[in-house]
Amino acid sequence: MTFDRDHHAILNLIEAWCAAVRRRDYEGILKHHSPDMLMFDVPGPFQSEGREAYRATWDLFLGWSSGPVKFEFSDIRITAGEDVAFATAHGHCYGPDDDGKPTDLDFRLTMGLRKIAGEWIIEHEHHSVPAP
Amino acid sequence: MTFDRDHHAILNLIEAWCAAVRRRDYEGILKHHSPDMLMFDVPGPFQSEGREAYRATWDLFLGWSSGPVKFEFSDIRITAGEDVAFATAHGHCYGPDDDGKPTDLDFRLTMGLRKIAGEWIIEHEHHSVPAP
Repeated sequence: MTFDRDHHAILNLIEAWCAAVRRRDYEGILKHHSPDMLMFDVPGPFQSEGREAYRATWDLFLGWSSGPVKFEFSDIRITAGEDVAFATAHGHCYGPDDDGKPTDLDFRLTMGLRKIAGEWIIEHEHHSVPAP
Repeated sequence: MTFDRDHHAILNLIEAWCAAVRRRDYEGILKHHSPDMLMFDVPGPFQSEGREAYRATWDLFLGWSSGPVKFEFSDIRITAGEDVAFATAHGHCYGPDDDGKPTDLDFRLTMGLRKIAGEWIIEHEHHSVPAP
C-alpha cells in the first residue's frame, strides 16, 4: 500500500501548503521545503534558489493586496515512487489587473519532491501562465 | 551505483531529445514519451494532454521559422529515485520577435519521468518564461 500512502501524504502536504498561503502563515508555507529549494515562479525573477529566496516570492504574492487570499488547486495529479515524486495541478488565485484590482488568474503548477527520513520534502516548484 | 546509472540515463535522454528537436526529427523527439504525456508549454494552450497533442506543440515551435533550430539546455539538475525522477534546466532557443524575426529566448524547463520496464519515460514537461 505504499502507493496509496505516499499519494495521500503528498496530497495532504499540498493541501496544508495552500491552506497556509490563504492564512498568510509563512511558517506553514515553508514547513516542508528543502533548504535547496528551486523556484520557477509566475513573475520574475527567472528563478529563486534556496528557502529564503523562495520565501521572498511569497512576500511578492501576499504583499500586492491586503484582501482575502485566493490560492487553490484542481486536477492534482501525483506520480510517487519510493523516494522521489512529482505532482502537477491547475492553480487558481487572484492577481492584479491593469488597475491593481484583484482578478482571477489560472496558472500551471509542477512540484518535485524527495522523501527524506520518511517525510516528503518539496525541492522544486514551477508556477507559470502561458506566454501571451 | 543506481544513482549514477539513472542520472546518466536521464541526462542522455534529455540530450538525445533536444538533438532531435534541432534536427526537426519528430520520431526522435517523441521516442521516450508516455502516451499520457502532460505538457505545459511556453505559449498556449494552458495544457496539452496525450502524445498527439504534445506532438502538435512541436508543429508550433518548428513551424514558425524555416531557419536553423536553436534548442539547448544549461544548468540541468536531475533528482532520480528508483522509479520516479524529475529534472530542471534552463532552456535556450529562438523565438519570434515583434517582426517575426528570430530572437534569443530563455525559458525554464521541468520534466517528470517514470521508469517502466527498466526504461525512463517522460510523462510531463513544463516549459515557461516569467510573466511580464
